[in-house]
Amino acid sequence: MTKPLKQGAVIGILGGGQLGRMLAVAASRMGFRTHVFEPQENPPASHVSDLVTTAAYEDTEALSKFARSVDVITFEFENIPSEALNIVEAICNVLPARNALKTSQDRLIEKEFLTNLNLTVAPYANIETEEDLTQAIKIVGFPSILKTRRFGYDGKGQFKIKNETDLKNSWAKLKNSPCVLEGLVNFTKEISVIGARNQDGEVVCFDPGENLHRDGILHTTTLPANISASQNIDAVLLTGKILNALNYVGVMGVELFVTKDGLLINEIAPRVHNSGHWTQNGCVIDQFEQHIRAISGWPLGDGKRHSNVLMTNLIGSEVLDVETLSRDTDVGIHLYGKADAKDGRKMGHINKILN
Amino acid sequence: MTKPLKQGAVIGILGGGQLGRMLAVAASRMGFRTHVFEPQENPPASHVSDLVTTAAYEDTEALSKFARSVDVITFEFENIPSEALNIVEAICNVLPARNALKTSQDRLIEKEFLTNLNLTVAPYANIETEEDLTQAIKIVGFPSILKTRRFGYDGKGQFKIKNETDLKNSWAKLKNSPCVLEGLVNFTKEISVIGARNQDGEVVCFDPGENLHRDGILHTTTLPANISASQNIDAVLLTGKILNALNYVGVMGVELFVTKDGLLINEIAPRVHNSGHWTQNGCVIDQFEQHIRAISGWPLGDGKRHSNVLMTNLIGSEVLDVETLSRDTDVGIHLYGKADAKDGRKMGHINKILN
Repeated sequence: MTKPLKQGAVIGILGGGQLGRMLAVAASRMGFRTHVFEPQENPPASHVSDLVTTAAYEDTEALSKFARSVDVITFEFENIPSEALNIVEAICNVLPARNALKTSQDRLIEKEFLTNLNLTVAPYANIETEEDLTQAIKIVGFPSILKTRRFGYDGKGQFKIKNETDLKNSWAKLKNSPCVLEGLVNFTKEISVIGARNQDGEVVCFDPGENLHRDGILHTTTLPANISASQNIDAVLLTGKILNALNYVGVMGVELFVTKDGLLINEIAPRVHNSGHWTQNGCVIDQFEQHIRAISGWPLGDGKRHSNVLMTNLIGSEVLDVETLSRDTDVGIHLYGKADAKDGRKMGHINKILN
Repeated sequence: MTKPLKQGAVIGILGGGQLGRMLAVAASRMGFRTHVFEPQENPPASHVSDLVTTAAYEDTEALSKFARSVDVITFEFENIPSEALNIVEAICNVLPARNALKTSQDRLIEKEFLTNLNLTVAPYANIETEEDLTQAIKIVGFPSILKTRRFGYDGKGQFKIKNETDLKNSWAKLKNSPCVLEGLVNFTKEISVIGARNQDGEVVCFDPGENLHRDGILHTTTLPANISASQNIDAVLLTGKILNALNYVGVMGVELFVTKDGLLINEIAPRVHNSGHWTQNGCVIDQFEQHIRAISGWPLGDGKRHSNVLMTNLIGSEVLDVETLSRDTDVGIHLYGKADAKDGRKMGHINKILN
């Protein structure tokens, strides 16, 4: 058995956004302190962390000092610069480990990894030149999506290609980045599984949630998802397969398309996931605590749901609805303490109890 | 309608213990920041607060600066020095207001206040001299309890008097403090109600919990309490009466004895209360968020319970059981990040879901 971290141990978190904020709160429930590393001033996680380092990922001295001050390091986003990871990894254990980041940071590597596990992904092709794209479109066909291999999120860095004109325009915009072309999947719904694996290899998944997107950003997650029992089992089993294949430690979000031919993996995220926020009001042990438990050597929660939940993101000015929303006593409110309610910015979310 | 505090507003908290810690976490969910004022270094609340002032309650400059930096002030304990309150109150709104503190800081004033509301308390007498005590014991009788009027908590500053010898010994120990003599109540159980009132006069109570003490310290609270429907209603109504009489804003804990002649009030606490910790895993909106909602002009939660709960305090070395307790996935763990597991020290609590 792994030796659990002692009371008062310090969890280092790379990234100070809302995911870091909610990880810090979960860590506090377990008697841990947190140290957040974030380049921007006054990030959401800093309001609830014991220590904050405000420094760039290029600041090797700040990174070393940060790594020496903590007992384990985790992260709230996957695009951590490789050089920064080299530095902290040499000093302190980083969980989930490097291989998971490497896999999920690059859409091509991720798809190859999943295909090698005999899991299904959308038809795809590696695109390095215009010629690659012309050839690939013949196989993948219209409509398809051209995506950058790296740094895409919430619909950024991707273009839908319905015809030759779209193809030319997309290539003009993305030709400087390595890309993949993905066939557009004809799916009936999107679901996601929040899975966890700890240092002893214990694997636990929360029930799949059903996701709706709006303008490329997650809008709602509903629990339970309206899927069959066998789809539920398939989703959980394939998540376990991915976690084990990566020898993963922590929480992972797996986004899946439900199609008439079965489940197909859209993408994996090696971190707590927006579609797992419902667990805060649906479970005794939520995804944030589950992640902290995994990386600190504690046993995992069992993912049991005591309530059905509808999670809704508050994007941009939607956060102003909170005055009205707060009158609904079945609604758990979670705001991120961000100053500017900019368009498209995730400002908070609510979990409405459905039963 | 009261205007709610804006996102990013700062809640000042006098006291940095576990109650302040859990208030700070609740405030963060609502997008508020917190500033904790606490004389001791590295208090539990500092791990999850945005700002911390480490200064004595006699440091008038630090108090003024603290009061100027926040949008509203609350507290996590009732024995705040009067002079300190004078200073911060002159600069910033303090909620709950002074009158509630004045009433609950002094057992005699509290009992007179409750008696004037036609509520029942144990037989009591004001004790200033040995002669007072000799006379009072004739009326109140053996066994009774001699308690200091101020600064008592968790069984501290009180002595049980079963006979003349106890009487002499107790007086020798407490004669330098103003005291009250209380008749020992023959109760079948102790319950408590966590009530809340906001700035618009809205009153909401959580269901009564049933409390067990061990060595003068709360050991468990069980929800629901095993009481009749009419006792339940009585408990909630009298709590509302107290809240309204004080024009109270915030959460209050009301401890009650259930006797064959009805309910009797043991004491009131003008703050979030240990016997309300079950709400963290039993309700969408817990007592900590309820308190922050009340003092920040938000609507209150309705106190609805989605799960039955057994709350157990982890005292001193009991916190070491957490390695075992964490294997029970129906258990919500809440640790306070305290370094030394001293005897009698509250180190954390667990909420076990019972249904």
